[in-house]
Amino acid sequence: MPIAETPLQLPVPNLPAGFRAAGVHAGLKRNPTREDVSLFVSTQPATAAGVYTTNLVHAAPVAFDRARTPGEGFRAIVVNSGNANACTGERGMADTEAMAAAAAEQLGVLPTEVLVLSTGIIGEFLPMPTLLAGIGEAAAALGDDQAALIAAARGMMTTDTRPKLFGRTFSAGDRTISVTGVAKGAAMVGPRMATMLGIVMTDAPLAVADAQRLLAAACEETFNCVSVDGHTSTNDTVLLLANAAAGGECLSGPDLEEFGRLLHETCQMLAREIADDGEGATHVIRIEVSGAGSRDEARQIARAVADSPLVKTAVHGADPNWGRIVSAAGYAGVAFEAERLTLHVNGTLLFTAGAPVTFDATAVSASIRENRETEIRLEVGDGQGAVRFYSSDLTAEYVHLNADYHT
Amino acid sequence: MPIAETPLQLPVPNLPAGFRAAGVHAGLKRNPTREDVSLFVSTQPATAAGVYTTNLVHAAPVAFDRARTPGEGFRAIVVNSGNANACTGERGMADTEAMAAAAAEQLGVLPTEVLVLSTGIIGEFLPMPTLLAGIGEAAAALGDDQAALIAAARGMMTTDTRPKLFGRTFSAGDRTISVTGVAKGAAMVGPRMATMLGIVMTDAPLAVADAQRLLAAACEETFNCVSVDGHTSTNDTVLLLANAAAGGECLSGPDLEEFGRLLHETCQMLAREIADDGEGATHVIRIEVSGAGSRDEARQIARAVADSPLVKTAVHGADPNWGRIVSAAGYAGVAFEAERLTLHVNGTLLFTAGAPVTFDATAVSASIRENRETEIRLEVGDGQGAVRFYSSDLTAEYVHLNADYHT
Repeated sequence: MPIAETPLQLPVPNLPAGFRAAGVHAGLKRNPTREDVSLFVSTQPATAAGVYTTNLVHAAPVAFDRARTPGEGFRAIVVNSGNANACTGERGMADTEAMAAAAAEQLGVLPTEVLVLSTGIIGEFLPMPTLLAGIGEAAAALGDDQAALIAAARGMMTTDTRPKLFGRTFSAGDRTISVTGVAKGAAMVGPRMATMLGIVMTDAPLAVADAQRLLAAACEETFNCVSVDGHTSTNDTVLLLANAAAGGECLSGPDLEEFGRLLHETCQMLAREIADDGEGATHVIRIEVSGAGSRDEARQIARAVADSPLVKTAVHGADPNWGRIVSAAGYAGVAFEAERLTLHVNGTLLFTAGAPVTFDATAVSASIRENRETEIRLEVGDGQGAVRFYSSDLTAEYVHLNADYHT
Repeated sequence: MPIAETPLQLPVPNLPAGFRAAGVHAGLKRNPTREDVSLFVSTQPATAAGVYTTNLVHAAPVAFDRARTPGEGFRAIVVNSGNANACTGERGMADTEAMAAAAAEQLGVLPTEVLVLSTGIIGEFLPMPTLLAGIGEAAAALGDDQAALIAAARGMMTTDTRPKLFGRTFSAGDRTISVTGVAKGAAMVGPRMATMLGIVMTDAPLAVADAQRLLAAACEETFNCVSVDGHTSTNDTVLLLANAAAGGECLSGPDLEEFGRLLHETCQMLAREIADDGEGATHVIRIEVSGAGSRDEARQIARAVADSPLVKTAVHGADPNWGRIVSAAGYAGVAFEAERLTLHVNGTLLFTAGAPVTFDATAVSASIRENRETEIRLEVGDGQGAVRFYSSDLTAEYVHLNADYHT
């Protein structure tokens, strides 16, 4: 299935100090221009944290990594795309262990120091000779420049049309700390979590408990607030590697807080990129819900709106069909006073006090059509619960891609 | 938006004794060949029961009918399509009251003896002069033959491609009891409940409490187990009118049980018709979940599978992509042992004991392609919870219909 590539949307970051990366084409994907095996390597042992899919049916690498994180002393993450190694039973777990062992051997580290990610088709066994050869090629191709990072990010892609990268740096005293993340999405992306893989690398020194706490908090508000099709995958994983190459003591106090903010921003930008690059998407939809009784309630309302095929097709059609939006909010399973509901789309008031208002439908339609991002803003009361949620529109192209993906 | 009509799929039933019906084109729909105002009338006072949408944002006629049912002494239901009278505030409620009053005047009954249904676009005020004229025309067109019933069922349609009718009769002692139902669906059809209207008429004598109890039970297992797009509407309503024209005492004992079975069958056949005629659908998907801890858990799993766009597109593409099905079951929010999960599609075993099995993918694909109905059968354990759930596939045509519906 040929998928046209699209240009990068965000500035390409650098790898943090002490990290190298590579992405190569091993042959799991048919197209020889598409990387399918990646390595992310730290020159010194790194603290690792992980957040994983909530799906009962989860892939072998998810079980493998979940058992090992959070922890210390990690040296590498090996990734393959094209095959999820999910629903593959004991043989699948043995293959994941073999991936870790092969990467460890190539890098001269221990198998227990390697984490594994897989994404792609469910239920087929990994082509191990091809994959193991690719791991060797990737180890030989490691680099610390942007080209190496981009190749590694491309090696995680499935039907993504572009790699997703974002990074930030900040000063903690006399140290410069870098935070650099890569992700993939495309489809089977639903909250808790998306069919997505994310890797965030930092040269900050982090205590294990802080790494896990901050990653979990960031994912909760970003990757868990994005939905392309509401289908929570078997493989969703976000890993954080902190290798302390910036030197000094573990971050604490205001420096740790600032790190948390940058980690959050990095995850947020990558999550938005995933929605923007949802399969077949022509719009990214930003849903802002406020005034709910709690953040969870706000998210539940946002998710109902995000996952409604009628809302998604209305945005695709540049149709300010507010009835679909308010009715989706109404069935979210959260109690609120329908008479208090207020809806703005792209800044224009469409509905308030239980009744339609007069608005310039042509102008709102034009605003939806002419902008890549559509903002749906719902106020549901005077509570403190608020959320930002990203979704994508539903197009005939999504249907074509997914009616023909497997066969 | 021109929607091609399709042939009736089920035998046309007769109206039960003492009922008349009519459907006319009043002008709410642009196409003059499409009926948009209907009347269902009983020659004698009838017991009425109702089941309504759970959406917080509900239409004026839902509030109107909900306040009046269950109860006795009803003589008519007036229906319009093309406009849902939802999100229309106080003016919407006044318009619903005016519809009931107009029908009552035409029929020579009291306004309190009339129930009201509306379906169509949300958030526009009803064109009352057009609609009231239509009610007069419908009253003049009332008939007790199949043509009248079909016209009345057509007057409920929105983007349905055909009217949905089903009926059964049975003998209760020396009485012959008829149960005849009509429904509409098409889109904004999600469980609890679908965007659907249903009317079931019977000449059985029924106690009010029995009517409500049996209707609620039937809806729970049928109309609440169908999903086209998971979007629960503002207007969903199922009404039961029992006019006792068959004579005798209220049904009880085995006769009442038999009535309940026929009511269930009628609702089941209409619910399946709604899924089969989902917007753009090329397949109806029957999902059978068994072995769950409870019926609610089974339904929750079935609903996750039914609403997954990836499952729906796979069926559209005749793709036996079982990974999408088992992963949807896995994120349903119901605890089960993933290793116990067994999946059959159209009778062929695709997955069991946590791993793929060898099967003839070409044959299963051909079986999906060549049959209108696809059966997805999931066994999740050895519990007693089981459910039958109907869904439809997701096609580019659904997207086209819903990206262009409003504007």
